[in-house]
Amino acid sequence: MIRVAVVGASGYTGGELLRLLAVHPQVEVTVATSREYAGKPVGMVHPNLRGVYSINFTQFTVDKVSEKSDTVFLALPHGVSMNYVPELLQVGVQVVDLSADYRLKDPSLYKTWYGVEHPHPDLLGRAVYGLPELHGEELKGSKLIASPGCNATATILALAPVVGWEPLGNSFLSDVKVGSSEGGAKPSEGSHHPERQNAIRPYEAEGHRHEAEAEQELSRLSRGQVRVSIIPHAVSSVRGVLASAHAWSSSDVEETEMWRRFAEFYRGKSFIRIVRRGIHPYPDPKYVIGSNFADLGFAVDRRVRRVTTFAAIDNMMKGAAGQAVQAFNVSRGFQENEGLRIPPMRPV
Amino acid sequence: MIRVAVVGASGYTGGELLRLLAVHPQVEVTVATSREYAGKPVGMVHPNLRGVYSINFTQFTVDKVSEKSDTVFLALPHGVSMNYVPELLQVGVQVVDLSADYRLKDPSLYKTWYGVEHPHPDLLGRAVYGLPELHGEELKGSKLIASPGCNATATILALAPVVGWEPLGNSFLSDVKVGSSEGGAKPSEGSHHPERQNAIRPYEAEGHRHEAEAEQELSRLSRGQVRVSIIPHAVSSVRGVLASAHAWSSSDVEETEMWRRFAEFYRGKSFIRIVRRGIHPYPDPKYVIGSNFADLGFAVDRRVRRVTTFAAIDNMMKGAAGQAVQAFNVSRGFQENEGLRIPPMRPV
Amino acid sequence: MIRVAVVGASGYTGGELLRLLAVHPQVEVTVATSREYAGKPVGMVHPNLRGVYSINFTQFTVDKVSEKSDTVFLALPHGVSMNYVPELLQVGVQVVDLSADYRLKDPSLYKTWYGVEHPHPDLLGRAVYGLPELHGEELKGSKLIASPGCNATATILALAPVVGWEPLGNSFLSDVKVGSSEGGAKPSEGSHHPERQNAIRPYEAEGHRHEAEAEQELSRLSRGQVRVSIIPHAVSSVRGVLASAHAWSSSDVEETEMWRRFAEFYRGKSFIRIVRRGIHPYPDPKYVIGSNFADLGFAVDRRVRRVTTFAAIDNMMKGAAGQAVQAFNVSRGFQENEGLRIPPMRPV
Amino acid sequence: MIRVAVVGASGYTGGELLRLLAVHPQVEVTVATSREYAGKPVGMVHPNLRGVYSINFTQFTVDKVSEKSDTVFLALPHGVSMNYVPELLQVGVQVVDLSADYRLKDPSLYKTWYGVEHPHPDLLGRAVYGLPELHGEELKGSKLIASPGCNATATILALAPVVGWEPLGNSFLSDVKVGSSEGGAKPSEGSHHPERQNAIRPYEAEGHRHEAEAEQELSRLSRGQVRVSIIPHAVSSVRGVLASAHAWSSSDVEETEMWRRFAEFYRGKSFIRIVRRGIHPYPDPKYVIGSNFADLGFAVDRRVRRVTTFAAIDNMMKGAAGQAVQAFNVSRGFQENEGLRIPPMRPV
Repeated sequence: MIRVAVVGASGYTGGELLRLLAVHPQVEVTVATSREYAGKPVGMVHPNLRGVYSINFTQFTVDKVSEKSDTVFLALPHGVSMNYVPELLQVGVQVVDLSADYRLKDPSLYKTWYGVEHPHPDLLGRAVYGLPELHGEELKGSKLIASPGCNATATILALAPVVGWEPLGNSFLSDVKVGSSEGGAKPSEGSHHPERQNAIRPYEAEGHRHEAEAEQELSRLSRGQVRVSIIPHAVSSVRGVLASAHAWSSSDVEETEMWRRFAEFYRGKSFIRIVRRGIHPYPDPKYVIGSNFADLGFAVDRRVRRVTTFAAIDNMMKGAAGQAVQAFNVSRGFQENEGLRIPPMRPV
Repeated sequence: MIRVAVVGASGYTGGELLRLLAVHPQVEVTVATSREYAGKPVGMVHPNLRGVYSINFTQFTVDKVSEKSDTVFLALPHGVSMNYVPELLQVGVQVVDLSADYRLKDPSLYKTWYGVEHPHPDLLGRAVYGLPELHGEELKGSKLIASPGCNATATILALAPVVGWEPLGNSFLSDVKVGSSEGGAKPSEGSHHPERQNAIRPYEAEGHRHEAEAEQELSRLSRGQVRVSIIPHAVSSVRGVLASAHAWSSSDVEETEMWRRFAEFYRGKSFIRIVRRGIHPYPDPKYVIGSNFADLGFAVDRRVRRVTTFAAIDNMMKGAAGQAVQAFNVSRGFQENEGLRIPPMRPV
Repeated sequence: MIRVAVVGASGYTGGELLRLLAVHPQVEVTVATSREYAGKPVGMVHPNLRGVYSINFTQFTVDKVSEKSDTVFLALPHGVSMNYVPELLQVGVQVVDLSADYRLKDPSLYKTWYGVEHPHPDLLGRAVYGLPELHGEELKGSKLIASPGCNATATILALAPVVGWEPLGNSFLSDVKVGSSEGGAKPSEGSHHPERQNAIRPYEAEGHRHEAEAEQELSRLSRGQVRVSIIPHAVSSVRGVLASAHAWSSSDVEETEMWRRFAEFYRGKSFIRIVRRGIHPYPDPKYVIGSNFADLGFAVDRRVRRVTTFAAIDNMMKGAAGQAVQAFNVSRGFQENEGLRIPPMRPV
Repeated sequence: MIRVAVVGASGYTGGELLRLLAVHPQVEVTVATSREYAGKPVGMVHPNLRGVYSINFTQFTVDKVSEKSDTVFLALPHGVSMNYVPELLQVGVQVVDLSADYRLKDPSLYKTWYGVEHPHPDLLGRAVYGLPELHGEELKGSKLIASPGCNATATILALAPVVGWEPLGNSFLSDVKVGSSEGGAKPSEGSHHPERQNAIRPYEAEGHRHEAEAEQELSRLSRGQVRVSIIPHAVSSVRGVLASAHAWSSSDVEETEMWRRFAEFYRGKSFIRIVRRGIHPYPDPKYVIGSNFADLGFAVDRRVRRVTTFAAIDNMMKGAAGQAVQAFNVSRGFQENEGLRIPPMRPV
């Protein structure tokens, strides 16, 4: 039984981790921290978890957490996790960090995208980018997992089988559509229901930070520098991300070849489903909600030589908490889908 | 390992049963029937279940089903199940019927509400109304379970602790709000997205059929004839039912007394959560989505002596498939929440 | 040409007033005030009005407003309007107040419901409750119009034809469903999109303030004290209110009699549509969105002797800004629907 | 007063035309035809128009329509309008055709995209593509207006100022997000509310027909062959289209230059609003709902040299009925915004 602490447990990602870990057969959640709600019952903040947890939120300290837990999931804002990680590692606790802090390998890139020097550049090399479909081997036994961003996850999964493939070149444009939960639990003018509902709203359209990690991972795969432009759009759903990753091809692309590339790349990956033809010919996040699945597919428009690959995920699951648990499972030698077996809901 | 057949498995309720039973540790789904989709893979109709099931739909016959299964879940339209039940029972298969066909005890009531004579009135007495919070004892070993309607479930759970209580009298008015999945998988003009989205639309406002079963169950509890008027309203959600059950009281009603009645009535019931005070002082189906929980609560407006009790459920779960699995668990002596442990999603 | 000032013009009700008055042929909007956005262009706050208005928001002062306008619409929070009204009236400006401050006739009731002494009880008698279907005559020439609350408007319109009618008695229960725009433009935890979307959430279920004005108006009509209990529920729509007003009847109620009562009561009222039978047999706010219509209807459940009357409005229009303009039109002797002729949108 | 017939008036586009024309000061609607609902009142099918129209639907015949009307709006399916147009023109009636039948100038292109020979290729030259921002002069006095498709309108408006501009080349990729009303009034499995709500679903991703008209118009503007790939995605809104039109640039693109191109191209166009900076820096269809506005904007991602232009419209208005009325106004010499002055709703 692994004793687990969830730090930053009152936010949406923290809450989703608590939800999943509550039924994980190898895990006992011993600590859930929240600066704002320390002393309050978990179910007060997360009404879905009423009656599921009997513990209260506590204040985070490295001492308390390390004493009571073997693994810590950090669901803290960017720039906050980074300071606790070294100490946690030092006392021997495994860290799964869901922030962006340890995702980039190159400290100078970190500065470019996040505006400050990374205080612990030495640890960037030790961190494993927690996308198990790409880093399954490295994750085994890993003590520091940097869990990917949701838009990056969708973009990388959509493009991984085709980057480096000659006809598509090295420039990709990922037009992403996301639900409102991606913005977190804190209210704002943009997330106010009357403003957010029915919106189809581009945001961070000129330099989305997830481009950095997507380029890092896809360049590694393609063995050459890949250019990835991500343009996110807020749409009305609460959960769900669809990445439509577009490229122009320099020659005709056969559908069968696309199919083969996807099938081979993801052979044996338990959370990947390749979608093509039938009543639902393209991926739609609607049909993965509540699960850790990523549905992948593609479209080839031969007339104009445009190729699009699609990835549909639940941003709270494969885009955040689910993927973190998956990576944790791999790191611990558990079955990859331990605690993540419930199929998606339909309809929802 | 119980071998299970889901009959009528291509509809929403059938699909939800498949979703739940896929991870039920005591169950193997051996048969999924569909008249329309026989021969097609389950995942073609239920895109959420792609990769989860490898079986195809088959045509339903009593012989095939009884040969391959110990328990049959019937997710068929009203008036269809009733004809198969006697034969299935005769060959020794347990039947969990999710239609309305065996819910009413009194054959004359059946005729009044459904317009035809019940063809097997003798079986009505053998059927157990599958609301485990009320019929837990009878369900043990039961061979014929009549799973309740969703609006009836919400209304009964909201009112059970207070019917027969003198100040509230015997007339209750249950104003119900329901999501669109309650109408099933078949498209219609009223369910067309542009018409259904943003609707706040009363329907069946003059004699909703669930009144019959609600009055049957609540009259039994109150030991006197109870009058229950149910007025359903279609709202924009996909999942969720909220019953707001109103009554005028003849004397002042104390909140503590209300609390006591709910707490005592539902003591030890694992799927009932009583909600009161805090950030979320009243039940909201939003916070039970994906789970089998029923969140219950109440409001006492002392100035006008009005009492309202609330029940919030996920109509696909506690209102249909989840409750059927719960009743099945009880009937088989399994833990009541076997296969139903995943907490509700939030946000969704 | 009436020169109009909108005070509190950066909120939703203020914005809706600006939207309507922009195309009102007898009106010129000369002033739009906002404490928070003074100096900023109207279109910056109300992106729908980009290119429609060229004026900037200004700070409110009685002097500036009275110099530049003949009529002032006050779209301020409760408790704020009340202090400006006397001075505005004194300098001869007509006031249409959309807050609750001047709706109640009885100063002691004001204190009961709003917790403070009314500072200008003398003016309560001069104010006309701005529901033109009930107070059309009094509105002519009125200098102080107290525009009704949205849930009260729906409840009153639904019940006006039947209060005082013997079989229904004097106790009414209005179960109201409302869209999120009713809560105004200020973000909060409850209005955060991930929390508000798909909610079916009771609120203010133990003493909703609109009960006071509904009882005042309905008691006046019935010539006896009426008891009205209003229980609002937040649902997912952005716009729309449906009031389902329930009563038990002491004898059989004929549908034709109901129809007659509604038809007679509202004869010649241009914004009232009585809905019955057909594809859409009951009112649904969906079909009045964007207009000042109130769709009214009813259901008679003879078995249990329950009568429900329904009223569907757009809370921003007939529930707020539209009704204020309608009352203003009547007060000024304009056609009642001047500036309000655009039919509802469908679908939306 | 122009006497107008709306043919195919029971669909969504027909209904929206009726809604707009009801308040158009120069128009009297004399005929509304519907094959399915002939003899029924308009308000029975369009509940929003209850009380607005007193006429009934009739069967369409060229004789009846031409006798009673000066202008006919054809809101019929593709392939149906084409056969009535010659006869209508011959009897001297002006035709505004909202189908795709007369949009393409080149008969061979028509065959390529629609699969059949065009039966009246001679008329293709007489038809004016009804996008007034591009064809204002030609529309004056035009007798045959081919009203553009919604996704094409958004794509063309977004790209018109930049096609032919050297750094952007001639390949454009328009990733379009659309609301459910775009699919029309006929229910289907894909439009069933439980399936359509929360969907983010690519469709017609391999050869969307609107590419043909978009390429025709944009190639004309750029004086060279332009390649436009349109990939539509169904999202949860009922109304609204956002086109995000992407291109890679061969050199650095200055924001001021983009701004200048948009401002110059659309100078004096009353329904175009250019959106940049502020609280709402990019177009969002949410803020044009109910109006004929097109909100346009752009994003320049200098790091990767990607340029995106955005167009947000209400698909029922600027994407269909509103634009048809606008073109009709221009053809008749009326003010361009006659009957189209109501500002967008907010929030909705």
